[in-house]
Amino acid sequence: MKFPLRGTLLEIEEGAQLQPKFDERGLIPCVTQDASTLEVLMVGVMNAEALGLTLATREAHYWSRSRQELWRKGEQSGLVQHVEHVLIDDDQDCVLLRVRIEGGASCHVGYRSCFFREVARLGPGPDFALNFLEKEKVFDPSKVYQTGQDGTPLVKSRTPSS
Amino acid sequence: MKFPLRGTLLEIEEGAQLQPKFDERGLIPCVTQDASTLEVLMVGVMNAEALGLTLATREAHYWSRSRQELWRKGEQSGLVQHVEHVLIDDDQDCVLLRVRIEGGASCHVGYRSCFFREVARLGPGPDFALNFLEKEKVFDPSKVYQTGQDGTPLVKSRTPSS
Repeated sequence: MKFPLRGTLLEIEEGAQLQPKFDERGLIPCVTQDASTLEVLMVGVMNAEALGLTLATREAHYWSRSRQELWRKGEQSGLVQHVEHVLIDDDQDCVLLRVRIEGGASCHVGYRSCFFREVARLGPGPDFALNFLEKEKVFDPSKVYQTGQDGTPLVKSRTPSS
Repeated sequence: MKFPLRGTLLEIEEGAQLQPKFDERGLIPCVTQDASTLEVLMVGVMNAEALGLTLATREAHYWSRSRQELWRKGEQSGLVQHVEHVLIDDDQDCVLLRVRIEGGASCHVGYRSCFFREVARLGPGPDFALNFLEKEKVFDPSKVYQTGQDGTPLVKSRTPSS
Protein backbone atom coordinates (compact mmCIF):
# COMPACT_ATOMS: atom_id res chain seq x y z
CA MET A 1 0.00 0.00 0.00
CA LYS A 2 1.18 3.50 -0.82
CA PHE A 3 0.76 6.13 1.86
CA PRO A 4 0.66 9.90 1.23
CA LEU A 5 3.91 11.83 1.24
CA ARG A 6 4.74 13.64 4.47
CA GLY A 7 3.63 17.27 4.59
CA THR A 8 4.55 20.12 6.91
CA LEU A 9 5.07 19.60 10.63
CA LEU A 10 1.66 21.17 11.25
CA GLU A 11 -0.04 18.80 8.78
CA ILE A 12 1.69 15.79 10.31
CA GLU A 13 1.06 16.72 13.92
CA GLU A 14 -2.34 18.36 13.79
CA GLY A 15 -3.80 17.20 10.48
CA ALA A 16 -6.36 14.56 9.55
CA GLN A 17 -4.32 12.75 6.87
CA LEU A 18 -2.46 9.54 7.60
CA GLN A 19 1.20 10.26 6.71
CA PRO A 20 3.19 7.54 8.46
CA LYS A 21 6.95 7.84 8.68
CA PHE A 22 8.94 4.72 7.85
CA ASP A 23 12.57 4.85 8.94
CA GLU A 24 15.64 4.27 6.78
CA ARG A 25 14.91 0.54 6.89
CA GLY A 26 11.31 1.14 5.78
CA LEU A 27 9.94 0.28 9.22
CA ILE A 28 7.65 1.93 11.76
CA PRO A 29 7.40 0.70 15.39
CA CYS A 30 4.06 -0.63 16.58
CA VAL A 31 2.81 -0.98 20.16
CA THR A 32 0.00 -3.51 20.60
CA GLN A 33 -2.48 -3.31 23.49
CA ASP A 34 -5.32 -5.56 24.56
CA ALA A 35 -8.42 -3.62 23.52
CA SER A 36 -10.32 -4.53 26.69
CA THR A 37 -7.70 -4.25 29.43
CA LEU A 38 -5.27 -1.85 27.66
CA GLU A 39 -2.43 -4.08 28.82
CA VAL A 40 0.54 -3.70 26.46
CA LEU A 41 1.02 -7.08 24.83
CA MET A 42 4.01 -6.56 22.55
CA VAL A 43 6.05 -4.06 20.57
CA GLY A 44 6.92 -4.91 17.00
CA VAL A 45 7.66 -3.18 13.72
CA MET A 46 5.74 -2.87 10.47
CA ASN A 47 6.74 -2.05 6.93
CA ALA A 48 4.28 -0.31 4.60
CA GLU A 49 2.88 -3.64 3.42
CA ALA A 50 2.25 -4.86 6.99
CA LEU A 51 0.54 -1.59 7.96
CA GLY A 52 -1.55 -1.65 4.79
CA LEU A 53 -2.60 -5.28 5.37
CA THR A 54 -3.40 -4.55 9.03
CA LEU A 55 -5.65 -1.67 7.99
CA ALA A 56 -7.27 -3.63 5.16
CA THR A 57 -7.82 -7.00 6.88
CA ARG A 58 -8.15 -5.86 10.54
CA GLU A 59 -5.73 -8.62 11.51
CA ALA A 60 -2.35 -7.53 12.88
CA HIS A 61 0.56 -7.93 10.47
CA TYR A 62 4.16 -7.10 11.35
CA TRP A 63 7.57 -7.25 9.75
CA SER A 64 9.68 -10.00 11.27
CA ARG A 65 13.22 -8.70 11.59
CA SER A 66 14.62 -12.10 12.53
CA ARG A 67 13.03 -13.84 9.55
CA GLN A 68 13.10 -10.77 7.30
CA GLU A 69 9.59 -11.40 6.09
CA LEU A 70 6.02 -10.25 6.41
CA TRP A 71 4.45 -11.84 9.47
CA ARG A 72 0.75 -12.30 10.05
CA LYS A 73 0.55 -12.65 13.83
CA GLY A 74 -0.87 -16.07 14.71
CA GLU A 75 0.08 -17.62 11.36
CA GLN A 76 1.94 -20.41 13.14
CA SER A 77 0.66 -20.19 16.72
CA GLY A 78 -3.00 -19.43 16.11
CA LEU A 79 -2.64 -16.42 18.42
CA VAL A 80 -4.29 -14.10 15.91
CA GLN A 81 -4.79 -10.43 16.81
CA HIS A 82 -8.11 -8.94 15.66
CA VAL A 83 -7.63 -5.19 15.32
CA GLU A 84 -10.29 -2.97 16.88
CA HIS A 85 -8.46 0.36 16.74
CA VAL A 86 -5.40 1.74 14.95
CA LEU A 87 -3.93 4.93 16.44
CA ILE A 88 -0.95 7.00 15.36
CA ASP A 89 1.18 9.36 17.41
CA ASP A 90 1.78 13.09 17.04
CA ASP A 91 4.65 12.96 14.55
CA GLN A 92 3.24 9.82 12.91
CA ASP A 93 6.31 7.70 13.47
CA CYS A 94 4.69 5.14 15.77
CA VAL A 95 1.54 3.00 15.42
CA LEU A 96 -0.65 1.76 18.29
CA LEU A 97 -2.98 -1.21 17.82
CA ARG A 98 -5.79 -2.14 20.18
CA VAL A 99 -6.57 -5.79 19.55
CA ARG A 100 -8.65 -8.71 20.67
CA ILE A 101 -6.42 -11.76 20.97
CA GLU A 102 -7.30 -15.31 20.05
CA GLY A 103 -5.90 -17.99 22.36
CA GLY A 104 -5.55 -15.70 25.38
CA ALA A 105 -1.88 -14.96 24.81
CA SER A 106 0.45 -12.94 22.67
CA CYS A 107 3.99 -13.76 23.77
CA HIS A 108 5.99 -16.58 22.17
CA VAL A 109 7.41 -17.51 25.60
CA GLY A 110 3.90 -18.59 26.60
CA TYR A 111 2.73 -15.61 28.64
CA ARG A 112 -0.22 -13.34 27.92
CA SER A 113 1.96 -10.26 27.46
CA CYS A 114 5.60 -10.00 26.43
CA PHE A 115 5.95 -7.65 29.41
CA PHE A 116 5.56 -10.35 32.06
CA ARG A 117 8.42 -9.13 34.28
CA GLU A 118 8.84 -6.02 36.38
CA VAL A 119 12.18 -4.48 37.34
CA ALA A 120 12.45 -4.46 41.15
CA ARG A 121 15.06 -2.65 43.15
CA LEU A 122 17.17 -4.74 45.52
CA GLY A 123 17.96 -2.51 48.47
CA PRO A 124 19.25 1.07 48.25
CA GLY A 125 22.02 0.32 45.73
CA PRO A 126 21.97 0.05 41.94
CA ASP A 127 21.03 -3.63 41.90
CA PHE A 128 17.84 -4.80 40.28
CA ALA A 129 16.05 -8.09 39.73
CA LEU A 130 13.04 -9.10 37.67
CA ASN A 131 9.80 -10.15 39.34
CA PHE A 132 7.36 -12.26 37.36
CA LEU A 133 3.98 -10.51 37.06
CA GLU A 134 2.39 -13.52 35.38
CA LYS A 135 2.73 -16.59 37.56
CA GLU A 136 1.74 -19.17 34.98
CA LYS A 137 2.15 -19.50 31.25
CA VAL A 138 -1.02 -19.47 29.19
CA PHE A 139 0.36 -22.08 26.79
CA ASP A 140 3.34 -24.37 26.40
CA PRO A 141 5.48 -22.99 23.57
CA SER A 142 6.93 -26.44 22.82
CA LYS A 143 3.46 -27.63 21.87
CA VAL A 144 2.67 -24.58 19.76
CA TYR A 145 5.92 -23.88 17.95
CA GLN A 146 8.57 -26.02 16.35
CA THR A 147 11.41 -26.07 18.87
CA GLY A 148 15.12 -26.67 18.74
CA GLN A 149 16.93 -29.42 20.68
CA ASP A 150 17.27 -27.18 23.73
CA GLY A 151 13.54 -26.60 23.86
CA THR A 152 13.73 -22.96 22.78
CA PRO A 153 11.64 -21.90 19.82
CA LEU A 154 13.33 -21.95 16.45
CA VAL A 155 14.00 -18.63 14.76
CA LYS A 156 10.90 -19.27 12.67
CA SER A 157 8.68 -18.73 15.69
CA ARG A 158 10.46 -15.77 17.27
CA THR A 159 8.72 -12.46 17.75
CA PRO A 160 9.69 -9.62 15.42
CA SER A 161 11.32 -7.77 18.31
CA SER A 162 13.90 -10.49 18.75
CA MET B 1 24.81 2.87 34.95
CA LYS B 2 26.32 -0.42 33.86
CA PHE B 3 23.93 -3.25 33.22
CA PRO B 4 24.87 -6.96 33.24
CA LEU B 5 26.09 -8.55 30.02
CA ARG B 6 23.48 -10.47 28.08
CA GLY B 7 23.38 -14.22 28.81
CA THR B 8 21.78 -17.12 26.98
CA LEU B 9 18.39 -16.81 25.32
CA LEU B 10 16.87 -18.76 28.21
CA GLU B 11 18.42 -16.41 30.80
CA ILE B 12 17.24 -13.36 28.89
CA GLU B 13 13.71 -14.60 28.24
CA GLU B 14 12.93 -16.56 31.37
CA GLY B 15 15.46 -15.34 33.91
CA ALA B 16 15.27 -12.89 36.81
CA GLN B 17 18.26 -10.71 35.89
CA LEU B 18 17.84 -7.39 34.13
CA GLN B 19 19.91 -7.66 30.92
CA PRO B 20 18.62 -4.88 28.67
CA LYS B 21 19.64 -4.82 25.02
CA PHE B 22 20.73 -1.47 23.65
CA ASP B 23 20.87 -1.31 19.86
CA GLU B 24 23.82 -0.27 17.70
CA ARG B 25 23.10 3.36 18.62
CA GLY B 26 23.08 2.47 22.33
CA LEU B 27 19.30 2.94 22.58
CA ILE B 28 16.35 0.89 23.80
CA PRO B 29 12.73 1.83 22.94
CA CYS B 30 10.42 2.72 25.81
CA VAL B 31 6.61 2.69 25.85
CA THR B 32 5.04 4.87 28.55
CA GLN B 33 1.55 4.21 29.92
CA ASP B 34 -0.58 6.09 32.41
CA ALA B 35 -0.39 3.92 35.55
CA SER B 36 -4.08 4.41 36.37
CA THR B 37 -5.80 4.19 33.01
CA LEU B 38 -3.11 2.19 31.11
CA GLU B 39 -3.53 4.61 28.22
CA VAL B 40 -0.34 4.70 26.15
CA LEU B 41 1.02 8.23 26.46
CA MET B 42 4.16 8.17 24.34
CA VAL B 43 6.93 6.05 22.89
CA GLY B 44 10.51 7.23 23.28
CA VAL B 45 14.00 5.83 23.52
CA MET B 46 16.49 5.54 26.36
CA ASN B 47 20.23 5.10 26.51
CA ALA B 48 21.82 3.29 29.45
CA GLU B 49 22.14 6.55 31.40
CA ALA B 50 18.46 7.42 30.92
CA LEU B 51 17.33 3.94 31.98
CA GLY B 52 19.65 4.04 34.98
CA LEU B 53 18.40 7.47 36.05
CA THR B 54 14.78 6.41 35.57
CA LEU B 55 15.34 3.40 37.82
CA ALA B 56 17.30 5.39 40.41
CA THR B 57 15.16 8.54 40.61
CA ARG B 58 11.71 7.13 39.66
CA GLU B 59 11.29 10.04 37.25
CA ALA B 60 11.18 9.19 33.54
CA HIS B 61 14.34 10.05 31.61
CA TYR B 62 14.71 9.53 27.87
CA TRP B 63 17.30 10.15 25.19
CA SER B 64 16.24 12.99 22.90
CA ARG B 65 17.20 12.03 19.35
CA SER B 66 16.39 15.48 17.98
CA ARG B 67 18.54 17.25 20.57
CA GLN B 68 21.00 14.38 21.00
CA GLU B 69 20.97 14.74 24.76
CA LEU B 70 19.64 13.21 27.94
CA TRP B 71 16.09 14.39 28.54
CA ARG B 72 14.34 14.43 31.89
CA LYS B 73 10.68 14.50 30.87
CA GLY B 74 9.06 17.69 32.17
CA GLU B 75 12.35 19.56 32.47
CA GLN B 76 11.00 22.40 30.34
CA SER B 77 7.24 21.79 30.38
CA GLY B 78 6.73 20.71 33.97
CA LEU B 79 4.96 17.58 32.65
CA VAL B 80 7.05 15.30 34.87
CA GLN B 81 6.40 11.54 34.78
CA HIS B 82 6.58 9.80 38.16
CA VAL B 83 7.44 6.16 37.56
CA GLU B 84 5.35 3.58 39.39
CA HIS B 85 6.39 0.46 37.48
CA VAL B 86 9.19 -0.47 35.07
CA LEU B 87 8.58 -3.59 32.97
CA ILE B 88 10.75 -5.26 30.37
CA ASP B 89 9.72 -7.53 27.52
CA ASP B 90 10.65 -11.15 26.81
CA ASP B 91 13.88 -10.55 24.93
CA GLN B 92 14.67 -7.47 27.01
CA ASP B 93 14.91 -5.08 24.08
CA CYS B 94 11.97 -2.86 25.06
CA VAL B 95 11.07 -1.06 28.30
CA LEU B 96 7.55 -0.26 29.50
CA LEU B 97 6.94 2.48 32.08
CA ARG B 98 3.74 2.96 34.03
CA VAL B 99 3.72 6.55 35.23
CA ARG B 100 1.71 9.16 37.04
CA ILE B 101 1.84 12.40 35.06
CA GLU B 102 2.06 15.90 36.44
CA GLY B 103 0.05 18.54 34.59
CA GLY B 104 -2.44 16.07 33.10
CA ALA B 105 -0.68 15.76 29.76
CA SER B 106 2.28 14.13 28.12
CA CYS B 107 2.28 15.22 24.48
CA HIS B 108 4.13 18.35 23.32
CA VAL B 109 1.24 19.16 20.93
CA GLY B 110 -0.92 19.79 24.00
CA TYR B 111 -2.90 16.57 24.23
CA ARG B 112 -2.92 14.09 27.08
CA SER B 113 -1.49 11.28 24.96
CA CYS B 114 0.67 11.46 21.84
CA PHE B 115 -1.81 8.95 20.37
CA PHE B 116 -4.69 11.40 20.08
CA ARG B 117 -5.77 10.33 16.57
CA GLU B 118 -7.30 7.13 15.25
CA VAL B 119 -7.00 5.86 11.69
CA ALA B 120 -10.49 5.59 10.20
CA ARG B 121 -11.37 3.92 6.93
CA LEU B 122 -13.15 6.04 4.34
CA GLY B 123 -15.44 3.70 2.45
CA PRO B 124 -14.46 0.27 1.07
CA GLY B 125 -11.30 1.46 -0.69
CA PRO B 126 -7.77 2.03 0.60
CA ASP B 127 -8.40 5.57 1.79
CA PHE B 128 -7.98 6.54 5.41
CA ALA B 129 -8.37 9.66 7.52
CA LEU B 130 -7.49 10.51 11.10
CA ASN B 131 -10.20 11.11 13.68
CA PHE B 132 -9.31 13.08 16.78
CA LEU B 133 -9.93 11.03 19.94
CA GLU B 134 -9.16 13.99 22.21
CA LYS B 135 -11.40 16.91 21.38
CA GLU B 136 -9.56 19.56 23.36
CA LYS B 137 -5.95 20.19 24.21
CA VAL B 138 -5.01 19.99 27.87
CA PHE B 139 -2.58 22.89 27.53
CA ASP B 140 -1.50 25.51 25.02
CA PRO B 141 1.99 24.56 23.80
CA SER B 142 2.79 28.18 22.93
CA LYS B 143 2.48 29.07 26.59
CA VAL B 144 4.53 26.13 27.79
CA TYR B 145 7.31 25.89 25.24
CA GLN B 146 9.43 28.41 23.40
CA THR B 147 7.91 28.57 19.93
CA GLY B 148 9.10 29.58 16.49
CA GLN B 149 7.55 32.34 14.38
CA ASP B 150 5.00 29.94 12.89
CA GLY B 151 3.79 28.92 16.33
CA THR B 152 5.25 25.41 16.21
CA PRO B 153 7.50 24.38 19.07
CA LEU B 154 11.20 24.85 18.55
CA VAL B 155 13.35 21.75 18.23
CA LYS B 156 14.30 22.21 21.88
CA SER B 157 10.83 21.21 22.98
CA ARG B 158 10.18 18.34 20.57
CA THR B 159 9.53 14.84 21.81
CA PRO B 160 12.34 12.33 21.49
CA SER B 161 10.42 10.39 18.86
CA SER B 162 10.51 13.29 16.45
